[in-house]
Amino acid sequence: MTPAQTPAQPLLIVGSIAFDDLDMPTPDGIRPHRDVLGGAATYSSLAAAQLTRGGVRVVGIVGTDFPEAHLEGLRSRGIDTAGVERAQGKTFRWHGRYSSDLSSRTSLDTQLNVFADFSPKIPAAYRNSPFVLLGNIHPKLQVDVLDQVQQVQKPRLVVADTMNFWIEGEPAALAKLLARIDLLVINDEEARQLSGIQNLVRAAADIRKRGPSMLIVKRGEFGALLFDEAGTFFVPAYPLEEVLDPTGAGDSFAGGLLGYLAARGEVTPGSLRKALYFASSLGSFCVEGIGPSRLLSLTRAELAARISAFARLVDHGGELALPI
Amino acid sequence: MTPAQTPAQPLLIVGSIAFDDLDMPTPDGIRPHRDVLGGAATYSSLAAAQLTRGGVRVVGIVGTDFPEAHLEGLRSRGIDTAGVERAQGKTFRWHGRYSSDLSSRTSLDTQLNVFADFSPKIPAAYRNSPFVLLGNIHPKLQVDVLDQVQQVQKPRLVVADTMNFWIEGEPAALAKLLARIDLLVINDEEARQLSGIQNLVRAAADIRKRGPSMLIVKRGEFGALLFDEAGTFFVPAYPLEEVLDPTGAGDSFAGGLLGYLAARGEVTPGSLRKALYFASSLGSFCVEGIGPSRLLSLTRAELAARISAFARLVDHGGELALPI
Repeated sequence: MTPAQTPAQPLLIVGSIAFDDLDMPTPDGIRPHRDVLGGAATYSSLAAAQLTRGGVRVVGIVGTDFPEAHLEGLRSRGIDTAGVERAQGKTFRWHGRYSSDLSSRTSLDTQLNVFADFSPKIPAAYRNSPFVLLGNIHPKLQVDVLDQVQQVQKPRLVVADTMNFWIEGEPAALAKLLARIDLLVINDEEARQLSGIQNLVRAAADIRKRGPSMLIVKRGEFGALLFDEAGTFFVPAYPLEEVLDPTGAGDSFAGGLLGYLAARGEVTPGSLRKALYFASSLGSFCVEGIGPSRLLSLTRAELAARISAFARLVDHGGELALPI
Repeated sequence: MTPAQTPAQPLLIVGSIAFDDLDMPTPDGIRPHRDVLGGAATYSSLAAAQLTRGGVRVVGIVGTDFPEAHLEGLRSRGIDTAGVERAQGKTFRWHGRYSSDLSSRTSLDTQLNVFADFSPKIPAAYRNSPFVLLGNIHPKLQVDVLDQVQQVQKPRLVVADTMNFWIEGEPAALAKLLARIDLLVINDEEARQLSGIQNLVRAAADIRKRGPSMLIVKRGEFGALLFDEAGTFFVPAYPLEEVLDPTGAGDSFAGGLLGYLAARGEVTPGSLRKALYFASSLGSFCVEGIGPSRLLSLTRAELAARISAFARLVDHGGELALPI
């Protein structure tokens, strides 16, 4: 079987690029990690680049304090950073502290800095991207990105993330966004908040009526659910012996998803279901290191081994026939 | 493919039989359900009986207040109730109230009644059971059941459940039990408590060193993990549009698991993986009704349809090849 029926297609990723200050629990107390490369666009593009040969295009904003070496690191992995704007001022900075079991985190400080005035400008050369991932920014800006891209052509697949802040504070802008995207990727709490429905199956049906024909509900260490025209699909999270840092796992998941689809060049219920395994794999690698370190060290052989292990994790050996 | 390589084999189930008083949330407030048939052995045997043609043998204890009609209901489903002891006094009664999203419950009252002095007597005719499910009772009593059974023959598969109460209060008795069982079925909190290890993969490795070569960790609506000689396996919970009552879901899961294995008559990593889908299916039906009502109304066609839906839920369409 040759999975790549069509050549890899360009993938546009728009989102935050940041410095994260992470307070991580260890058996000996909190260990601080400072100035860690972060941001949704960073994690998503690093994950996507594992699955494509080039074609990942990033749009984001950094300050004058952002080391060129970080951008060079992205470029060395085939990520096009021509869309990363460098503005006067400081880079977006987030300071978070995780609970001892890593199941929750507290934001100690959020300095938007240059990200406060981020108004994504999509380079002309990016506007033909058939695959678009709109990271979690103001839904008005997400729509604005789509307006710029659609001046050239309608993308093959538009995927968006959002968060409780916009669901609560910008319902009208979010409604406009939902009407224009194909796939929404959110977590279970956000799905419940957005729909006002506790049950996820019914919440998903409600959200899909608002625009996106496909919905993915992420559940962290409990995997993710896809709802689309072909029905409901479930992908587990990979059971790991050690989780070091959950930061960026959801963004790596989205990047892995889009990277696989762009590499395959097709979006079908079948390719989407396979893509979810790559999404979950990239998410699982992400949490194995502090910040994006594991994504940066990841090899093709390690990824292939994880995907094989994933296949064994869910292989029930064919037909599930009633025993009587 | 004919799944039943060998004839169905008898399955012995030991555990509680109870009246449950359930306070269930509804949009209009708490709705009381009183004198609901309950208990681990009840749920497990009803689930197992869906997958076998006879051969399910129950050992438990009820009081003089327990309607013969309930036992007749079990018998009409092919469950052998000759091992159900009727003692002077009242039947075990539990009163629980669920939170509005059904994710947690509070025990308002627990009256052990005749269950307080339960000392399982395994009828001579039951002692040749090759499949044994030891429901959650004092680990000393679980060992005592094994002693009685092993006077006749060593069972093919011994499965046990336990709970935080015994993990905390009876570690020595529990250690003796663990050394004598093949498969322990507990939830994630219990696995963490028993091992003292937060990470489930490492917790599982620790627990398996204490005796059971196989461990299943249930995670409620998030599915279950199996750890055995063949590696790690994951089965999701079926995403339902409506959950009415989680009571007995874990016991139905265990009953479905054992019922499938007894019907197949073989225990291999392969049959265990398939069995987990039947376990999760029976658990999913259980929560669709108050008490065991859905298990009592369940038809073979409905079970076959649920299993098919489950297969679609996890069917990623074959090989997961890297796209590049």
